[in-house]
Amino acid sequence: MKKLIQGGTVVTAADTYQADVLIDGESVVAIGQKLDVTDAEVIDASGCYLFPGGIDPHTHLDMPFGGTTTADDFETGTRAAAFGGTTTIIDFCLTSKGQTLNDAIKIWHAKADHKAVIDYGFHLMIAEANDSVLQQLEQVVNEEGITSLKVFMAYKNVFQADDETLFKTLIRAKELGALVQVHAENGDVIDYLIKEALEKGNTDPIYHAHTRPPVAEGEATGRAIALTALADSQLYVVHVSCSEAVQRIAEARERGLNVYGETCPQYLTLDITSLEKPDFEGAKYVWSPPLREKWNQEVLWSALKNGILQTVGSDQCSFNFAGQKDLGKGDFTKIPNGGPLIEDRFGILYSEGAHKGRISLNQFVDITSTKSAKLFGMFPKKGTIAVGSDADIVIFNPEVTRTISATTHHMNVDYNPFEGMEVHGEVVSVLSRGTYVIRDKQFVGTAGNGRFIRRNKFKRP
Amino acid sequence: MKKLIQGGTVVTAADTYQADVLIDGESVVAIGQKLDVTDAEVIDASGCYLFPGGIDPHTHLDMPFGGTTTADDFETGTRAAAFGGTTTIIDFCLTSKGQTLNDAIKIWHAKADHKAVIDYGFHLMIAEANDSVLQQLEQVVNEEGITSLKVFMAYKNVFQADDETLFKTLIRAKELGALVQVHAENGDVIDYLIKEALEKGNTDPIYHAHTRPPVAEGEATGRAIALTALADSQLYVVHVSCSEAVQRIAEARERGLNVYGETCPQYLTLDITSLEKPDFEGAKYVWSPPLREKWNQEVLWSALKNGILQTVGSDQCSFNFAGQKDLGKGDFTKIPNGGPLIEDRFGILYSEGAHKGRISLNQFVDITSTKSAKLFGMFPKKGTIAVGSDADIVIFNPEVTRTISATTHHMNVDYNPFEGMEVHGEVVSVLSRGTYVIRDKQFVGTAGNGRFIRRNKFKRP
Amino acid sequence: MKKLIQGGTVVTAADTYQADVLIDGESVVAIGQKLDVTDAEVIDASGCYLFPGGIDPHTHLDMPFGGTTTADDFETGTRAAAFGGTTTIIDFCLTSKGQTLNDAIKIWHAKADHKAVIDYGFHLMIAEANDSVLQQLEQVVNEEGITSLKVFMAYKNVFQADDETLFKTLIRAKELGALVQVHAENGDVIDYLIKEALEKGNTDPIYHAHTRPPVAEGEATGRAIALTALADSQLYVVHVSCSEAVQRIAEARERGLNVYGETCPQYLTLDITSLEKPDFEGAKYVWSPPLREKWNQEVLWSALKNGILQTVGSDQCSFNFAGQKDLGKGDFTKIPNGGPLIEDRFGILYSEGAHKGRISLNQFVDITSTKSAKLFGMFPKKGTIAVGSDADIVIFNPEVTRTISATTHHMNVDYNPFEGMEVHGEVVSVLSRGTYVIRDKQFVGTAGNGRFIRRNKFKRP
Amino acid sequence: MKKLIQGGTVVTAADTYQADVLIDGESVVAIGQKLDVTDAEVIDASGCYLFPGGIDPHTHLDMPFGGTTTADDFETGTRAAAFGGTTTIIDFCLTSKGQTLNDAIKIWHAKADHKAVIDYGFHLMIAEANDSVLQQLEQVVNEEGITSLKVFMAYKNVFQADDETLFKTLIRAKELGALVQVHAENGDVIDYLIKEALEKGNTDPIYHAHTRPPVAEGEATGRAIALTALADSQLYVVHVSCSEAVQRIAEARERGLNVYGETCPQYLTLDITSLEKPDFEGAKYVWSPPLREKWNQEVLWSALKNGILQTVGSDQCSFNFAGQKDLGKGDFTKIPNGGPLIEDRFGILYSEGAHKGRISLNQFVDITSTKSAKLFGMFPKKGTIAVGSDADIVIFNPEVTRTISATTHHMNVDYNPFEGMEVHGEVVSVLSRGTYVIRDKQFVGTAGNGRFIRRNKFKRP
Repeated sequence: MKKLIQGGTVVTAADTYQADVLIDGESVVAIGQKLDVTDAEVIDASGCYLFPGGIDPHTHLDMPFGGTTTADDFETGTRAAAFGGTTTIIDFCLTSKGQTLNDAIKIWHAKADHKAVIDYGFHLMIAEANDSVLQQLEQVVNEEGITSLKVFMAYKNVFQADDETLFKTLIRAKELGALVQVHAENGDVIDYLIKEALEKGNTDPIYHAHTRPPVAEGEATGRAIALTALADSQLYVVHVSCSEAVQRIAEARERGLNVYGETCPQYLTLDITSLEKPDFEGAKYVWSPPLREKWNQEVLWSALKNGILQTVGSDQCSFNFAGQKDLGKGDFTKIPNGGPLIEDRFGILYSEGAHKGRISLNQFVDITSTKSAKLFGMFPKKGTIAVGSDADIVIFNPEVTRTISATTHHMNVDYNPFEGMEVHGEVVSVLSRGTYVIRDKQFVGTAGNGRFIRRNKFKRP
Repeated sequence: MKKLIQGGTVVTAADTYQADVLIDGESVVAIGQKLDVTDAEVIDASGCYLFPGGIDPHTHLDMPFGGTTTADDFETGTRAAAFGGTTTIIDFCLTSKGQTLNDAIKIWHAKADHKAVIDYGFHLMIAEANDSVLQQLEQVVNEEGITSLKVFMAYKNVFQADDETLFKTLIRAKELGALVQVHAENGDVIDYLIKEALEKGNTDPIYHAHTRPPVAEGEATGRAIALTALADSQLYVVHVSCSEAVQRIAEARERGLNVYGETCPQYLTLDITSLEKPDFEGAKYVWSPPLREKWNQEVLWSALKNGILQTVGSDQCSFNFAGQKDLGKGDFTKIPNGGPLIEDRFGILYSEGAHKGRISLNQFVDITSTKSAKLFGMFPKKGTIAVGSDADIVIFNPEVTRTISATTHHMNVDYNPFEGMEVHGEVVSVLSRGTYVIRDKQFVGTAGNGRFIRRNKFKRP
Repeated sequence: MKKLIQGGTVVTAADTYQADVLIDGESVVAIGQKLDVTDAEVIDASGCYLFPGGIDPHTHLDMPFGGTTTADDFETGTRAAAFGGTTTIIDFCLTSKGQTLNDAIKIWHAKADHKAVIDYGFHLMIAEANDSVLQQLEQVVNEEGITSLKVFMAYKNVFQADDETLFKTLIRAKELGALVQVHAENGDVIDYLIKEALEKGNTDPIYHAHTRPPVAEGEATGRAIALTALADSQLYVVHVSCSEAVQRIAEARERGLNVYGETCPQYLTLDITSLEKPDFEGAKYVWSPPLREKWNQEVLWSALKNGILQTVGSDQCSFNFAGQKDLGKGDFTKIPNGGPLIEDRFGILYSEGAHKGRISLNQFVDITSTKSAKLFGMFPKKGTIAVGSDADIVIFNPEVTRTISATTHHMNVDYNPFEGMEVHGEVVSVLSRGTYVIRDKQFVGTAGNGRFIRRNKFKRP
Repeated sequence: MKKLIQGGTVVTAADTYQADVLIDGESVVAIGQKLDVTDAEVIDASGCYLFPGGIDPHTHLDMPFGGTTTADDFETGTRAAAFGGTTTIIDFCLTSKGQTLNDAIKIWHAKADHKAVIDYGFHLMIAEANDSVLQQLEQVVNEEGITSLKVFMAYKNVFQADDETLFKTLIRAKELGALVQVHAENGDVIDYLIKEALEKGNTDPIYHAHTRPPVAEGEATGRAIALTALADSQLYVVHVSCSEAVQRIAEARERGLNVYGETCPQYLTLDITSLEKPDFEGAKYVWSPPLREKWNQEVLWSALKNGILQTVGSDQCSFNFAGQKDLGKGDFTKIPNGGPLIEDRFGILYSEGAHKGRISLNQFVDITSTKSAKLFGMFPKKGTIAVGSDADIVIFNPEVTRTISATTHHMNVDYNPFEGMEVHGEVVSVLSRGTYVIRDKQFVGTAGNGRFIRRNKFKRP
């Protein structure tokens, strides 16, 4: 059956206009003034924005880390995402040395395939870049539709790859049409600083931040960019947290390089002082890169505003405070890194960004949805409201004010880093390929309805 | 009567999709797959792109300069614009010291009102910023709908304003919601270099370039930005020609300032060697700023690609070679500055930019239309193809190759600076507010049908 | 009669070593270990440094300003300078439009010639750069030995020159071998901000700082550098106060330009909060450029340490608090700009710089003496302790600690901006061309003994 | 017996003056006008400069590399150095993983101790930074007087250290007062590019340059600086070859970091085209980093002129063309890296630098001698002509022109990269600690007379 959304204001990365939207099956088929359709279920969206469903380009669901596993899996995670206005995620598929890429991908499919309530894709981690791996990538990119490859410059002796691995990945990505992502922190430096801190008995959460200084992020960002320039390839820097990294990206873009950057809601709104909260609460705010001095927030907002950064990902990676985060009592290195953000990413960006005028409404859509669709080969199926696109649509009421809290959120985790934060705007209903997932703020989706997206090759947006 | 454009591919600053477009009166009222409309004239656009009509943010029609007047007036100029795919221009309204702003505006309306075949707005030159002028601006911005103000940092003793004037204009613009434009070259330096060149007998066209060095443009651009930062205002740098200026704009944007930049087709495709053409032909290539060393072209394209520059204007300012340009034989300072570009701006950007892959198709639309609409307060009426927008639409055949020539162009001028240049793509038909201006490559418009656009206040896009 | 200084440690811009120094007449004639001289007056300098006499490259003595005249003239000023360890000054000779340069120079000679107790040179202000002035400069540089020319980019309608004047001066200076100095602040912007502040009733001394923002200094510095690059000339930026200006100079030097910078003791040790002192005491801290946010101090010290700035001048320009500074009660623009520093420049640099390890002992000498001698054409007569050089020598005891105070200083002014500051090191005796001016902390000099220095042309050091 | 050098012009890093210089034993004891000494051997230096003996901060004598050993050992190398005006060298002492530092140092002493004809010190390579090595460094710095430690960022699987090693070395150096040197090229990238070139059959010498791009040097330089900033340590970048690296050093110095840079004569005078010489002659020009595009030369000279780079080392590492360089026929990676420069470094800097006016005479001394003495803890014994300093003096005739050639040079190698280059100025005689090594252009020194210099800890100059 068709659906006709009436009375809403369509917002895309470019446009803002009032129109009815007609959905037939999984797609948008018409947009018009007072469309005269008789055989459609009518949805009243008066006073609401119609946004393209959010795309979260950076999630870790059901991921093992430091001896434990994230609190949210593909079911709880994608359900929470949908509540927050997100209809597509791209999750990181871990690999390890020696493992074939297909084995790794199969494991990830097994985690996701019967659980996801919204559509999803995978990024693939590159743990090593030997001839076999480089060979396997052809099939991964061309047939599996996994067209983004992630390299870690940090987490020494765990995920960290050397420059040779990064460089080979960049060159191979260029050949195959994939986009390389980097976690840009200098792991060698951090490893040393951590050991030194622990030796001195500096074990509190705040030392997580002190042992990962901004210079370590700026340096690694600059290095990844230099290698990208040499490889004439394309680079996407995940979770940019500080001015040092923004500067390097700005310089790269001024030189015309295909370099892109993502930041996260926590870097835009929280700062290093959260790590000093008493009663070990600082552990809730342990991300890598860490929260920074407050003044960096303005730099990040400016970078979003003027197009130096393109996306905001959640870096969703939730661990319960009780039983998981507290593994790090007495040793901050044992605190599982990450936090629950998949649900609030979209709403925080609207409230702190578009509502407060730091970015325009169209930029909000571009940053939370369109640009990710374009950079990661899902456009125009995803990332816009246009004729022919998937009917991934968020009906959003901008007039409401609400308060973020773990008591009301839908993530499977016992705290929320934005607890008590007042935000403007509220997701009313969410359609995924024309089907309600959230209807009038109630979950009506189905685990397994989310589909894996074979993504297209990288193309400059 | 309604019009239904069938079978084309709609391209906006964000989207690319196949759909029918329904026009009712002056507006787009629906976009959809196989729209079922019975009472509409059907236009077949199979195989064609449907672009939003081009917006040329920088024209000089019927403008006196150096004792002569531009070869094109609002009739010939706008007709040529339409042939080239442009449906809106913003022309510069000159003012002089002592003159009331309203008097100046009236003169410009008189030039345009019964002649323009497409819609138009005015920028207003600020010749002085005394209390009276600053007072008059309130009415200009709020009632006349002229929301962009231009200050010249060059042309000493003619148009050049001092820093006080620029600074006051920036502050007043901030209060009123106007966007300040600058011609950024250091006029004092240039004036000296010109005198020195003439004294030495260096009178050929090439000295036009040698006396306006890139440093003079970079310096003035940096100065205008510094004043904008102090005034917390907004700035649009017209006709950026060189790396020095691009760098300043990139730095400003990295700092989050509301600073924008425009370049022109000539700077993207021609270089300083054209000024050395024999038989005084170099005079055809006299623009200010001048053509630069060739390597700057790549810098400008990169800046467009990565969002450091936002628009491409024509700086249309045509003078015949015979009888006008040749006034400068024996003294390059007497060569009227400028050239005919209003017709080819859109097509060159398509061919050299989108077709050659330097920018994406969506960026092409953004750069030639959408961003100008947004920066200059005409969006969403102009600058997009969306429900509710003016039906300013270009039906464009990308499969054709053609050659630019003065023998076939429609501007009222005896040469074309791109003579012999082969370009991909061709404008088939052009609609302005739902009415054909160009139909199957024939002009079917009417002088006076173009409407003056009262523009909205500046709002960050 | 000869003088033999025994037991001291000679410090030059390059060297530090223990040796006896033999003076015959006005010059140093030998330096050696245990020089065996029988016919010399022996001076015991055990435990002391022997520094080349300080050179203050920036003083205003007996200068009219804002309807009053500086509290110190050439007699009181140079006497105080000698007490502080300075044996040479270069004072600014004012000029005004219409006045011949020779007339201006004569006036300045009349102020200095029978009063100075130490040697002195003149910088010449360029108020206008018409053909006559440019012509007169030949004689000024070649015959008067005035080889540095100062242009003001601020003080609108008083001293401010336009870019044409600056550019012509730079070109003429290049031809003649002179060094151009600029007061780099954008006077147009400042003029506007001052008017605006006064209109709002913001009349306290702190508004002196608020109306002269760092961006105005950075912009003007960058502009002067751009013009220098175009003129292929040489530039010396006086009284650099902030990071914005340092950055421009650093960039210029990286590009290999002949650009030099001077800062002053007040910018290195005081900050903007001094302007907020109660009871109008803020007026004592009114300099142009103004004192800045404290963090700039570290930038300035770094710039001295790493050779981005070369000199420290006093910008001596003393006005009594009672009767002069208080002219500005109720209107900060009426506060005479400047302060008394000629006496403490040398000692503060030693104590805050060399003693605290921010700069080395050799850098201290270079910054307070040698570099000024080299940049301003007085080397090797001045600026070093070497065979053949003028015996301008300071015997300095580094072991003593003392407190700066208006009650003990020797300047003819009723306050000291560093009142209460504890400094390490003390000038014991000072020789000017082999003759005592200060002997065991007593003044033994003679007004009129100071000689005017015809300086050599600019040569890169 | 004493020596009295008469009639010469003493030049130091600061001063230039005519004076007699009296030497007693190994030291300068007096400098004066017409010194009246009766018991001294008189040396006539009329018309000559007296320079402090050159200090070459970067040599590789008797060094194994790629299965062969440098053509020059400490005897032939230091003799040639002396002919060229150099009286002190600092040679690199290789170490390898597992070897104790003392064992490595002993080997180097054995190479040098009975052979050197001039004084010498050692830099120590850090191959690994485990606890044992870090522990041993205390004795190395404090007792052996080896106060500079070198880390290689290139030569993968040979010398290359990882960032952890570099970072630990920087921190340890800070504690102990040592200066860290880096060979800054990204070895991972280079390693990949080399393999790729060889696979493609690109084996000629020019591919040595193509596989070591400037970006790889700029990146590594920036990384080393970032680590230095984090460690709050001190860094000396050896053999800077290109603009990319200069920029990073300039930025570091603007930020006030203790970062220093050295370039070499070949980068100042030769360019990448030399590598394309026919008949495998390009192999003579194989250095790492490689020769660059010619425009970099101007950048390097500017950096020396304005103090961004401080020293010029020879990077002496000679291999015969016949029998050594030709090992690389058919595979450029087998060409031993390096060339013979120890003899011509000083003279080329004089001729191309001071004589041509790119740097001043005092800068020439600073760059070729004084700054190395200061940075490497040998000042004031070495690096100046001053009372109390070692009588390491070069008597230099600036009036002569000569031609560099392998047929006349004194290095033990069969070619000279500057063959046929005409240079101004000639070393007439050289004294090392008061004793002739070169007298009237004849070698009169003795192998083994050179003394090992226990150097002082790092102190900012």
